[in-house]
This record gives sequence, C-alpha cells and structure tokens, in this order.
Amino acid sequence: MGLRSPEEYKASLRDGRAVYYRGERVEDVTSHPHLGIAVDHAAIDYRVAEDPSYRELATVADQSDGLISRYYHIPRNADDLIKRSRLIETTTRLGHTLVILIKEIGTDALFALHLIAKQTDEKFGTAYFDRVRKFFEYCHANDLAVAVAQTDVKGDRSLGPTGQQHPDYYVHVVGETSEGIVVRGAKVHTSVSINSNEIIVLPTRNLTEQDRDYAVAFAVSPNTPGLKLIASPYAEGVVKSEFDYPISSRHKMIETLTVFDDVLVPWDRVFLRGEWQMAGPLAKTFVEFHRFTAISYKLPLVDLLLGSSELIADYNGTERASHIRDKITWLVSYAETLRALVKMAAIECKIADLDIAIPNTLTVNMAKWHFAKNYHQAMAYAQDIAGGLLVTAPGGDDLQSKEIGGYVRKYLGGRGDVDGEKRLRAMNLVKELTTTDFGGYQAVLAIHAEGSIEAEKMATLREHDATKFKAYAKEIAGIRD
Amino acid sequence: MGLRSPEEYKASLRDGRAVYYRGERVEDVTSHPHLGIAVDHAAIDYRVAEDPSYRELATVADQSDGLISRYYHIPRNADDLIKRSRLIETTTRLGHTLVILIKEIGTDALFALHLIAKQTDEKFGTAYFDRVRKFFEYCHANDLAVAVAQTDVKGDRSLGPTGQQHPDYYVHVVGETSEGIVVRGAKVHTSVSINSNEIIVLPTRNLTEQDRDYAVAFAVSPNTPGLKLIASPYAEGVVKSEFDYPISSRHKMIETLTVFDDVLVPWDRVFLRGEWQMAGPLAKTFVEFHRFTAISYKLPLVDLLLGSSELIADYNGTERASHIRDKITWLVSYAETLRALVKMAAIECKIADLDIAIPNTLTVNMAKWHFAKNYHQAMAYAQDIAGGLLVTAPGGDDLQSKEIGGYVRKYLGGRGDVDGEKRLRAMNLVKELTTTDFGGYQAVLAIHAEGSIEAEKMATLREHDATKFKAYAKEIAGIRD
Amino acid sequence: MGLRSPEEYKASLRDGRAVYYRGERVEDVTSHPHLGIAVDHAAIDYRVAEDPSYRELATVADQSDGLISRYYHIPRNADDLIKRSRLIETTTRLGHTLVILIKEIGTDALFALHLIAKQTDEKFGTAYFDRVRKFFEYCHANDLAVAVAQTDVKGDRSLGPTGQQHPDYYVHVVGETSEGIVVRGAKVHTSVSINSNEIIVLPTRNLTEQDRDYAVAFAVSPNTPGLKLIASPYAEGVVKSEFDYPISSRHKMIETLTVFDDVLVPWDRVFLRGEWQMAGPLAKTFVEFHRFTAISYKLPLVDLLLGSSELIADYNGTERASHIRDKITWLVSYAETLRALVKMAAIECKIADLDIAIPNTLTVNMAKWHFAKNYHQAMAYAQDIAGGLLVTAPGGDDLQSKEIGGYVRKYLGGRGDVDGEKRLRAMNLVKELTTTDFGGYQAVLAIHAEGSIEAEKMATLREHDATKFKAYAKEIAGIRD
Amino acid sequence: MGLRSPEEYKASLRDGRAVYYRGERVEDVTSHPHLGIAVDHAAIDYRVAEDPSYRELATVADQSDGLISRYYHIPRNADDLIKRSRLIETTTRLGHTLVILIKEIGTDALFALHLIAKQTDEKFGTAYFDRVRKFFEYCHANDLAVAVAQTDVKGDRSLGPTGQQHPDYYVHVVGETSEGIVVRGAKVHTSVSINSNEIIVLPTRNLTEQDRDYAVAFAVSPNTPGLKLIASPYAEGVVKSEFDYPISSRHKMIETLTVFDDVLVPWDRVFLRGEWQMAGPLAKTFVEFHRFTAISYKLPLVDLLLGSSELIADYNGTERASHIRDKITWLVSYAETLRALVKMAAIECKIADLDIAIPNTLTVNMAKWHFAKNYHQAMAYAQDIAGGLLVTAPGGDDLQSKEIGGYVRKYLGGRGDVDGEKRLRAMNLVKELTTTDFGGYQAVLAIHAEGSIEAEKMATLREHDATKFKAYAKEIAGIRD
Repeated sequence: MGLRSPEEYKASLRDGRAVYYRGERVEDVTSHPHLGIAVDHAAIDYRVAEDPSYRELATVADQSDGLISRYYHIPRNADDLIKRSRLIETTTRLGHTLVILIKEIGTDALFALHLIAKQTDEKFGTAYFDRVRKFFEYCHANDLAVAVAQTDVKGDRSLGPTGQQHPDYYVHVVGETSEGIVVRGAKVHTSVSINSNEIIVLPTRNLTEQDRDYAVAFAVSPNTPGLKLIASPYAEGVVKSEFDYPISSRHKMIETLTVFDDVLVPWDRVFLRGEWQMAGPLAKTFVEFHRFTAISYKLPLVDLLLGSSELIADYNGTERASHIRDKITWLVSYAETLRALVKMAAIECKIADLDIAIPNTLTVNMAKWHFAKNYHQAMAYAQDIAGGLLVTAPGGDDLQSKEIGGYVRKYLGGRGDVDGEKRLRAMNLVKELTTTDFGGYQAVLAIHAEGSIEAEKMATLREHDATKFKAYAKEIAGIRD
Repeated sequence: MGLRSPEEYKASLRDGRAVYYRGERVEDVTSHPHLGIAVDHAAIDYRVAEDPSYRELATVADQSDGLISRYYHIPRNADDLIKRSRLIETTTRLGHTLVILIKEIGTDALFALHLIAKQTDEKFGTAYFDRVRKFFEYCHANDLAVAVAQTDVKGDRSLGPTGQQHPDYYVHVVGETSEGIVVRGAKVHTSVSINSNEIIVLPTRNLTEQDRDYAVAFAVSPNTPGLKLIASPYAEGVVKSEFDYPISSRHKMIETLTVFDDVLVPWDRVFLRGEWQMAGPLAKTFVEFHRFTAISYKLPLVDLLLGSSELIADYNGTERASHIRDKITWLVSYAETLRALVKMAAIECKIADLDIAIPNTLTVNMAKWHFAKNYHQAMAYAQDIAGGLLVTAPGGDDLQSKEIGGYVRKYLGGRGDVDGEKRLRAMNLVKELTTTDFGGYQAVLAIHAEGSIEAEKMATLREHDATKFKAYAKEIAGIRD
Repeated sequence: MGLRSPEEYKASLRDGRAVYYRGERVEDVTSHPHLGIAVDHAAIDYRVAEDPSYRELATVADQSDGLISRYYHIPRNADDLIKRSRLIETTTRLGHTLVILIKEIGTDALFALHLIAKQTDEKFGTAYFDRVRKFFEYCHANDLAVAVAQTDVKGDRSLGPTGQQHPDYYVHVVGETSEGIVVRGAKVHTSVSINSNEIIVLPTRNLTEQDRDYAVAFAVSPNTPGLKLIASPYAEGVVKSEFDYPISSRHKMIETLTVFDDVLVPWDRVFLRGEWQMAGPLAKTFVEFHRFTAISYKLPLVDLLLGSSELIADYNGTERASHIRDKITWLVSYAETLRALVKMAAIECKIADLDIAIPNTLTVNMAKWHFAKNYHQAMAYAQDIAGGLLVTAPGGDDLQSKEIGGYVRKYLGGRGDVDGEKRLRAMNLVKELTTTDFGGYQAVLAIHAEGSIEAEKMATLREHDATKFKAYAKEIAGIRD
Repeated sequence: MGLRSPEEYKASLRDGRAVYYRGERVEDVTSHPHLGIAVDHAAIDYRVAEDPSYRELATVADQSDGLISRYYHIPRNADDLIKRSRLIETTTRLGHTLVILIKEIGTDALFALHLIAKQTDEKFGTAYFDRVRKFFEYCHANDLAVAVAQTDVKGDRSLGPTGQQHPDYYVHVVGETSEGIVVRGAKVHTSVSINSNEIIVLPTRNLTEQDRDYAVAFAVSPNTPGLKLIASPYAEGVVKSEFDYPISSRHKMIETLTVFDDVLVPWDRVFLRGEWQMAGPLAKTFVEFHRFTAISYKLPLVDLLLGSSELIADYNGTERASHIRDKITWLVSYAETLRALVKMAAIECKIADLDIAIPNTLTVNMAKWHFAKNYHQAMAYAQDIAGGLLVTAPGGDDLQSKEIGGYVRKYLGGRGDVDGEKRLRAMNLVKELTTTDFGGYQAVLAIHAEGSIEAEKMATLREHDATKFKAYAKEIAGIRD
C-alpha cells in the first residue's frame, strides 16, 4: 500500500460500475472519448505525488503508512491548512483552473465525519467514530479517490423531505437487514463519482424529527449494486482542438445524477442513521471544510482571468488605455483580495475537538462570497478587454488552411510583431474562460458550488457576533440596559 | 420585383461566393450543416412578410414598388421609428432572442449614407447622393438582404491606420481604374455576410488627412472576385438537440473575417473615396441608427432571461423565497427600463435632413449602456435562480433511455406535478441563455456589438449639454461670470 | 376666493396651531428664525401663480372657480400629467432642489380619496365620495396648502396595529359622538404640517378585520384641539450664511411628529371609518400618485448633482481627466434615465375610474428605485470630483477678513482666472448637496420618502405580469401545459 | 522628558501660533468653543499612555528615553505593525470613530523621511539623514504632537507647479540665508495643525527638473513667524447636545489652509531642498505608511456603522426581516474584509532599509480601496435600516419638555419595552454617522483622505506584477515567445 501511480488509479476505475452517458451504459470510463478526459484530468492528484517538483508539497510522512498524500493529513494548525490550501491551488493550476477534487472533497467530508461522529457518539451513545476512523485509515492507506454525494434532488425546494410529492426526493433508509441499511433516492451534482473509488453520502440540510429516516450518512463503492451514475452530457459538444479550446480539450470534471435504487450499505460504512439532530451539523461541518477547499482552488481561475486579460490587452495594444487599466486594476484587487482572505482563513483557524484545525468560518464565507458575487463582473471585464473576436474569430483549422491561413495570420495580428496565431491563442483563452461551455460551467460553479451565494451570506451572518458590535454602539449612544 | 419568398432568398445565396468554414471552401451555404441553420434563421425576415399575423407590421405600401418590406421604409417620424422598432423586436422574438439582421443593419447603413452623401456632396462637390439613392432603390425593389462590414482588423488598437505594422490593417484604396476603385484589407465581425445579397463597407473611425486612402465606403456583392468570407467556427460544437439546446439548435448568426484581396468596386457603388473628414461622421451616423436597432432587438433577450428565470423558479418551488423575489424584481426593472428607454428614444427623435427621423441619440446610448453594463449581472441572477443543474443535469438522450429515463423523469421533478422533462426543458433554456456557447455569444455581443460599452459612454457624454447644467449650478451658487 | 397671494398664505398660518420646536411652543411659525425659512420656501407654490413667467404652467382655468392652481386640476390624460410633472419640477428648481409640497402632496391624497371613496361607497353603501368631493372643492376654491399624515409611529415594525405594546402605535378611533369621531395616536414624517391649512390623514398599510378601528381617513385643520405638531430640530445647526450654505440658508422643509390626543373630527371630514378592506388600497393609491410627484421633484436634485460636479471639475482643471469624465458620464446617465422614465410614466398612464389619469405604476416605481438605489453613488461621485476641500476649506467669513481674506482668495483659486471665491462657491454647492445636514436630509429622503426602496421593489414586482413572460419561455422551451 | 500628560500637552499649544477661525484670530485654541473640542479629542493620545487599561499597548520601553509612546517606536517586523495598528484602532475607538492623528501621521512622515533621507544622502552626497534622526529623537523624547502638511493648493490640477497662474500654487523655496531657507505657498487639508507641536511639510507629487525649488521638505513649529493656520469652519453649526449629536459634540478634528508667507526654516530642519528626483519617492513612501494608519483607524468607523445598524434594527423590531438581514450581512462582510486585509498587510510586510518594516503596499491599497469604494453604500444601508426618523425625529429638548416629552417617549418607542429615548439615542448615532456634517466629513475623508480612490487604484496596479500572471496565461495558451 501507500501512494498509487496514475496508472494504478485508472485501473481501479474498471470495476463494473454502472455509469451512463447520453443514455448509454459506459463500460470503461477511462477509455471513453469524453469521460476519459475527466479521468486523465483527475490523475493529476496522483501525478503530483510522483513529480519531484511537487512531491514535498503533495505528500507527508505518516507514522503508520509511510509517505501518504498530504490530502489525507488531518490539519492540526494554521500551517497545515496553509499547505493544504497551497496543494489544492497547485494541482488546480496544473489542471488549468479546473479543480482535481478526487482527494480534496473526500477528505473534507472525512474531517467533518470525525468531528460529528464523535459528537453523535457522545450524545446518543452510538459508535460511529470508530467506523469513521477505520474507513479514513482504509482510504489513506490505499490512496483512494473519494467523491461526496450531498445535494438531494429535493423536488419542491420550499419543502423538507416529508412534505414532498415523492418520499424519494431526499435519500432515505427504506429497510434494514443484519448486513446493513437499504437506501433509496437520488443525489445531484455528484462531482468525480464516475472516477472515484468511494462515494461518501451526506445529508444536505437540517432535518426535523419526522425526517428521521432521511438522517443518514454512509460510504459506498461506485460499483455497489443498485447504484446508477448518470453522467451529465454538459459541454459534450466541445471540439477537441487544443488551439480553439485550450482548457476544455484537456480538462474536464463530470457530475452525475447519482441514483440509489435500494442500495444495501454494510453497517461498518454507516456513519449516521436516524440521529436527525446531527444532520444539519454534519452538513454544515463538511461545508466549513469544503468552502476552504473551494476558495483555495478558485485562485488559479481568478489569476488566469486576470493574466489572460492582461495578455490580450498587451497584444491588442490597449494596455495603457485608461479604461483598460481601470478594469485590470479591478481584476487585480478581485484576485488579490481573495488570496489574502484565503490565507487569513488559515491563519485565524480554530482548533476544534480531536485537535482538528478548522479554517476560520467567517473569513472562509466572506472569501467565497467575495469570489462569487464578483465573478460575472470579472467575466464581463475580461470580455470587454479582449474584444468581439472572442466569438467572431476564425479557428485553428482556418489558420492551418493553405488557401486562407495566410489571411488569418496577417489580418488578425496585434501590436508590434504579434501575429494572428499568437493573438488568437490569447483570445481563445479568454474565450474558454468566459464564453464557451467551459466558461459557463465555471460561472455556475462560482454561484452554486459548495453552497450558493445565499448560503454564504447566511453563514457570514451566523458567524458574526452582533452583541459585540451593538455594545460599542450603545456605549457611544449612552444607552444603558 | 417586390417581396421575395424565403425560397427565393435562399436560392439567391447560391452564387459562387467564396465562403470558408473551418479551413474549407463551402460551395452552398444553404445546405451546410452549420451555416444552413443561419440561413434558415435569416429567412425569418422574409417569412414575416408572408405571414398574415405579421404582414401589416412587416410591410408598407411604397408608391413606386407596391408592397415593400418595412425595413426599407425611411423613418419620417416617431411613429415610423416605433413601428420599425416593433418589427425588429418581433422578428427577434421569432428568432428566439437572436436578431435576424439581414435587413436591419443594411438599412441602418443606407439611412446614414443618405445623410452623409448629401453632406459630402454639399461640402466637396461630389455626387455620392445620387449613387446612394439608386443603390437603395435597387435594394428595396429587389427585397435584398444586406450586410455591413465596418470594423477593421486594426492591428495595434492604440494606433490609427497609418502608424500600423501593415498598411492593410485598415481597408484602403490601393488602386483606381476607369471602372472603379481597388480595395485591400480586412474587416472583422461582419455579421450575416455569408447569407446576404450585398455587403456595404463603411469606415470604422475618425480619420486624419494622411489616412485619405482609408476614407472609403462602398457596396459589393458577396461573390465579387477577391472577396473572401472566412466564417467563424464559434459555437460549432453545439449538438443538434432541440431538447438540450432549445435555441442554438435552430438559430444561428455567422460572422466572418471579410478579406478584400484587391477587390474592384465599380464607381456607381463607391459612396466615399478620400473625403477623410466624413469618415468619422459616417461611422457615427450609421451607429446612431444601428444602436437603435440594437436596443430594439435586445428586448426579447432580456424578456426571456426574465421569463425563463420566473419559470424555473416556479418549477423549483422557490418563487416566493425572498431572495428569489429580489432577483426577479431586479430583472423586471432591468427589462422594463430598457423597454421604456427604447420607446422614449423613438418618441424624442430628431428630424434630420432629408426628413429622416433619427432616434434620440442620448437616449439610445443610455439604453444601450443600461443593457450592456447590467447584462452579466442578469446572467448571474438567472443562474442563481435556476440552480446548479444548469451544468450537471442529464440530457435528452438520458430521458429517452429505456434503462434510465424513468430515473431522470422521476428524480428531476420539481414542485407539484412538474416532472423531470418539464423541469429540464425550463432549465435548458436558462442554460442556453447563460452557460453555453450561445450564452457566451450573447454576452460578448452585449458588451461589444454596435460599439463597446466605452463607446456608448463616450456618446452619452458627447450628447449631453453641460452648459445648461452648469448654469443651474452657477445660479444657485451665486456665481456671475 | 381664487388664487391666494404669498402674504395671504402666510397670514393664514397664524391660527393658534400647537407647534413645538426644541421643546418650546411656537406662537407664530412665520416669524420663527428656523421655521420661518420653511414658510418662505413653501410660499414659492403661491409665488409662481403670480409670476408671469410661470403663470401659464402654474394655473388652469376652472369652470366654477376661475383661475385655479394647476395642482388642483385633476389629471385626465398624459398631457395633464406631463404638465403637472413639469410644474412640480419647476417649483422645485425654484426651491433649489427642495420640493415645495404644500399643494403637491395634498392633491395626490385627494385624487386617491376620490377613487377609493367611490369604490368604498359602491362596496359598502357608504357616502364618502360626496364628502371627498366637497372637501376637494373647498380646498381648491380657497387655494389651500394641504399636508398629508400617513406613516404611523408603528412601535415594533414587525407587528400590525393590534399586536403592539401600546394600542396607540397606530392612529385609531377611540370614540364617536354625534359630531364626529375621536382619534388617538401619532404619525411621523408629516411634512409641511406646520405650514399648511389642512392635514389629510391616511392609513399606512393593509389592515385585517381586527384592526377595524385603525381603518380611518380624515382631514383636520392644524389648529384643531388635541392636535400637537412637534417639529423636528433636524438641521437646526445650520448657520445662515448664503455663501457657506447656498441652499439650506434659504430653503427648508419641516417634518413633525403629529400627535392626535383625542382629536374630534367632524363627520363631513371623515373619509374612511372601519372599512378595513379599503385601508390598503387607499394607502397604495395615494402612493401611486405621490411617487409620480416624487420622481418629478427629484429631477432638479439630480440635475444639480450633475451640474455642480461639472462646474467644480471645470474650476479644478480636471474636466478632461478620464476618471472624471467617467464619473460625469455616469451622472449624466443617472439623471437622464430618470428624466426619460418620468416622462414615460406620464405617457403610458392608465385612465382609471372617474376619468382620472394614473401615471404608469410600474414605470413610476422603477423610476423611483432607479433614483433611490443609485443616489449615494451619485453623492460619492460628486464628492470624488469636487475634492477634499468640501470639508476642509475656509468659509465666507475668512474670505471677508481683512487679515486673511487675501490668502483665501489667492490660494484657493482654480484653473485659469477662477479665484478662490468662485471656486469656494462651487465647492459649497457640492458640500450642501452631499456633506451637510441638508445633504443628509436629501439622502435619507432618497431612501425613505414616498415609500422605502423595499416598497418600490415590491410594487415593481407586483405590477409586473409574470404570466406573459413565462409564456414566451414555455414556447421556446417546448413546454405545453 | 518622557511621556507628557494631557495637561502638559494642552499647555504646550498656548504659544502664540497664528490660528484663524471664521475670519478672527484665535488667541488660545484650548479654550475656544469649537477648536477646544478638537484639542480635548486629541488629548486621547496622551490619556491612553496614562490609563492602566491601555498603557501596555500605548507605550514601549526605549533604551535611551525610558517609557515612550508606542507611536514613536519604529516598526521592525509584522508584530510591531500589528501592535501599532491596534493602538491606532484603540485610540480611534476611544475617539468614537474619529482618528486622533497627532502622533500617527507625524510618525508616518518621520519613518518615510528616515528612508528617503538615507537614499538621498547616498545618491546626492547630502546630509539629511542625520537631521531627520535628530529631529525624530527630539520629537519622541519630548512626546510631541506632530502634524503633516502635504497637499499643495495646486490651482489648476491638470498642471504641475511651474505651469500655474501663480508660482505659489505649490510651496516653494523663495530664498536662502545662512540660517535657513525661506518658503512661500500654501497647503490645504492640514489636519491637527492647530493643536500640534510641530508641522512636517512634504512634497505632494512627482516633480521635474524645472520644479527644483518645489522639491522641499522640512519641519516648523506652528508659532513660526509667517505661518498662518486658517482653520476650516466646517461643521461649525453643530449644537452641543450629546443626545442629538453623540459623536460630534465631543469629538472633532480641524483642518487648516496652512499659509507660508515667507517663512524662514532653519537648516537643521530642512530635509529636502532641490533634489527633485526624490520628491515623488518621499510623497509615495509617506503615503505607504500613512495608508496603513488609515485602514487601521477606519475599523471603528465601519464597526460602528454595522453595530448601530444592528442596534436600531433590533429596536425597530426588524432584525429578522429578510432585506434587513441581507443589508446587515453586507455590512458584516464589508467590515470584516477590511479587518482581514489590515492584518494581512502587517503580516506580509516588507523589511526595508534601516530595518524598517513597511506594511504590504498592495494589500494596504486594496484595503483602502475596499473601504472607500463601498463606504457610501454602507451609509445607504445604515440609513435604509434605520428609517426616515433619522431626519424627522424630535430632539433631546423635546424629550425633556414637560409639555410634550411624554408624547415623544411614548410614541417613538420601538419593539417590546424600548422607549422613545432609547430608540432616539440609537437613531441619533446612525444620524451622526450618515446624515449630519460629521457624517459628511467621514464620507469625504473616505474618498479623499490619504490619497483619493483613484490614487489607491493606481497604487494597486503599480504594485501588481503583471509578468507573472501573463506567464501563466501564455503557458496554458501554448504561447512561446
């Protein structure tokens, strides 16, 4: 055991899992023309551990298992969080702004499960903590890729689980045997499920007593009977040209509608079952870790929005125009404020139970909100700086054409000796980030991934101590209670 | 002569024009799998004239030519402008938010040419006006589709034509014969050129005396020797599923890099040649008309952003959530403020020379800026309202699959009896508008088409009479000059 | 009877009304050092009717009463609304951005009372309409100044009238005699009550059956026993220097806490009493008219924010700096979009019952929201353009000083021959608009007067017909119900 | 020597300095009704050193002078900067959001002078550093209050010193004697000059060779012959009621137009004289330190905007309304993002020459810009949350009145048992912060103090390393230079 190679990782995905794409069963995700890109992309998390340039950041020495992936290192202090953040940022940079996620999200869930399992055991006399600990050891010892399925399909989103048209709109326990529990329902937005080794399932919200059967957390292997992974065809239409699509032709992440058609989960993989009071805290604690992952992996994206805008402005000859400088300044501040908040969230972490360091929740949520609420404006500025050629330019095939390639090279040149090819390459980068399906994917993730904008706002307010601020106001106003 | 049928229009496009797509020459644009969609879409401008529901709006009785397309009716007053605006809005609605443009833009240019040709003749003793008038009569008598090529490739955008690396970075006259002038250079962003009958070429900016050869305006047929239309492959990857891509599978507009490789233009089609003082006014006057076209055709787009957001909120069961109401209210105000300004621009028009009604330039530019500067926020709200399924949902093939279709239909249902199919249809509409290549196309058009955001700001300031406002300030401040 | 002179108006205010200012009873508001400014300001509404330059706009011929104030002319069509709007704008311009209000608000209430009294009579068999009509005739025949008291003090604003700590937190009927009703409670924000001839009292919100006694509307004279007008000392500290305070030294509006300490209201002045279903409609209908008044009187304010910014930029020598141009462009668009919406609200009015023209409610609310939500940004830009001297400059006394006046005149000069006095005069105008108590007053009015920002948003959404917009979405999405 | 008491500080200000207020010479600033408030306020910087609760933060042990003010401790590392920041924040909290400044700004200038004097000496063979060091020792040994005069009056702001109408629009050297230099001109915005012991004069911008005589830096005592301090009467009208004006009745800062009417400056107080190349660097280095001071002292202000908004929402009973929560969340994020950036600027400081720690300039400028560009929106939200009573409420005198006090107390009560007095106290706090002259003062300072918004933007862009960001873009785009 110990660190796996990218090849070992890929081989582990050929296990009979029920993956569907555009209505068809996919036998081998690693060789599928679209899904295979996602597998290759995900392998970055394994490649960095082998690469001498990244090994020190990507791995840590563990007392029991020798060198393990740093992702599986439970953060104990600010420095651990800073390094974890830097690793996430680094692999995402290698993924050309697309997060890898196959170890990031799973460990976020596992850290949260440690904390909540312990609290649940203390409160309800259950024995979840030991199961969590063992499962965690199994994952890190085998260097596994782990997905997390949290968001239920929800039906009418104004209602909880029990008021719905179908009882199955939230995943729930429908039976129990000596071997384990039987679950039914479906989760959406399950990232990297088709190319992970385990899927951790968590509740998605606070529950009430009547929702008891919906209070369930567990882990399953993707090839478990009854589990169906229906992959989204989103961005299927992308042509595989690195010239025209410099990012999405090589990097992809796949989400599934994850259906639990009466799936049996063995008892030792059940981490919550009926303790409805803990569903909310578990959901929240996972998100606390996961939003820190999120703000870490957004850094290369905002850096590239900035860098590609600066590059195309340079090529267009407009770098010194006052309105261009204005927009670039805005992008600088957008990116660097995010960077400062990410680091501050680590520095001002809270050491929780079990000596686990939790990134500062207020700062994490402000950072995420800062990122999310300004993202579309950042896109708009990048488009504004780049120009209309984003959507009207000829493509790589035109540049290669004997008949017309010369026209394209000549006429689409920019300032000085920047020829049409160079300029189109820079242009296509802004195009990928802001106008193609990939750009749309990043934009929607900005708003919805790891909790929506509204969720970040609620968390920001919740983490704020109003009493302290009101007290200062009362003091100056001369109000005595 | 008189109105043409859609079929006649299509037939007219098979004339040997040199169109290129992804590096290959296209023999017949009407039957090409991608370009053909654009041709079908454009035919809407002909279909409305035949359709009894739209005929009254789409046509006018002309004294010499009988019933002609309303587009060719020179606006004489506010009411004419209101009707022209309504026609543009109506055809764009039929085009599912995508403007048709094959008569809109050409007539915008022709109205401007009338005004500027007359001024040029008066100032320089030339005889352009008569050429313009005849060409205009030829176009409306034959019910032609007319494109406009204005934006030069520009090279270093901080420099004018003469300071560039290549003299050809702006279209210019390189020779003259008894038959006409010979032009060289290239224009970008030429919309509907591959499927029009004429291309009007206009200068793109103010020029100086040394730029004399760049001061040129004319019309050419797309099949003129030396003219190359290099079509942009943008959005080529779209899969032709109406379910997944409800708009772009049926509606398309194509832009070209339009290369003039020593093209001979007959004298009777030359509308400016050397009078550099008129290049700026011509560019500006065209844009004055064209931005009014633009704000008219943006109405269905903002209406649909609003309507699809309301529909998906309804299906999601979130219509009454306070933050959803807040975002919808913003979208209502965004759309309806635009609508009010469009109408006011017509009502407060200026009757210019030749009895041509020019929409109020200040109002037009404010309207355009209002639309453009808020567009990305509108997209963000639509995405926020719709949810992450925009980019993670299964597709139409999944819904049709015997094996898994049932899961999709069941689990992606919304409030009440809204099943998965209905909800995905609504979701896919927001997806098209905000996350796919089509959404990206509309977003870039919002910022750059008909002049960039910065251009609209400059026009807004230029049209404003500061003296009047300063006078009020001086009066109150007690300042006497 | 007929039009009154300013002097007659002032004389009419010396009637024993119980006005309090800074804890003291004020015997004569017209001669009070602070309140008197408000009286002089209000007299503008009488002065314009005498001034030949404004008489045509300010008056109309009435069949029964000869020449009457245009304010008392019930609007019948778009043109009437446009003229009413222009009159309000004009008097506010004369009031140096401060609305006059003494006829504007009262007639807004009277128009609404006409409509609601008629509906109430039809629905409940009451006889309010005739009382309203007679009271209206009395007001216009005597050319009266009429205030409106609407906003109850409200106590806990999350509760309606009946759930409060005190039953008196909303004005209500506490008794009834043969002569009339007895009312108790208090209203806040009652503008111009100290200098009006009548006060119309309206309910402030929707009511429920249990709130029956709170459903009351009536009119009282300010000197009615039991009525106490407690004037706000806000902005009391302003020094009366026209140089330093070019606006507030000459223009003022006073609000009162208006206390009804068991006030008897004669039956012929009671316009609603118990018909709780009509309280909401009456409140809303008044506001529909009053917000149109509001957007009309905001025009001089936004014009002056723009004009004074342009003037000081000119004097500072920064008019051509790109960031200054950018901010001024924003201010132009802010002001002119408001102007366009005001006019469009009149043009697209609805002709209601009794042939009364109601300005387009959707447009009015969008206009108001546009004004309100951007107002503080407009202030920020004006301050940014003007510079720090706004709060650090010497004053008029310094300029007059023999010892140091020369320094001020010399050193605070601007571009060219703009000396310190001219520059300070321009500076002080921006100061008044944005940094003094007067600026704060306008800022709070922007947000709260005539309904808060949130109220405008709610009205905008309510007036919007979602069905139409959803239908377009369904059509394109291929959804059939 | 050593620390001075507040009384010693006040006594030191009675030295014959030429202070003018509203056109009159002020003999003793400490006893003047308006200026005296500013003196009392400033004394806080002395009081904290005596107060056991603050002494540890406010003082440090110095090897030569025993206990000295921490302000005079040159920062050597992040921790020193954090403590300096915390001290500035703490005294400003005691100053009820108004910075004290009499030691803060002077030491900012002195730190910068150390760095630039050394560089100048190295480059030009001058001997400024020793003078600076001695002057610094003199200041800290005597615990002096030190103002800084930087901004020249400037005349036409589009021109440098030599192109102006008057040569005196920037302070310059007009003569030289054996004793020192003679300077003429005027500075604006000189804070705390009337109540400091020394005034340090710095250049305000980059200069060219022809501006040599404008390249001058020095220190003078306020009572130096020829020096005139013309105090701004801004906010003079404030009534001294703690109830109505809880902040400005007790806290004030005074700016002067500071006129140098041929003032002789002894050689040992001249720190730059003719080395025009160093004017820009000196201006910039001062500002680098001073903006860190600024963002530190803005913290109590944004905290109080938040806290007072929360308090009044609580009293109004609206704390749980969704739109109120939304606005409060925004304020939380506004305040806490600023706090995070302030701390990060210290943590990521740069250790410069002479072992002086300079706060991270990029972060400082982003923090300042974040504060400044959002400040007016924060004011708007606070006003929105508080309600219209901000400008229409009765005052403290009304509450004290026997006749009407009861009405005010009763009718202006809020939720539960919050009576009118409590609610008005909370209301008056928001009023002070957002609607009175004091609120206007803070608003203008937000935009202009320590450099304008545009200056912060320029610094942000200048401190950003575009090359690094472009390189990442090129790597992904496949561009090789």
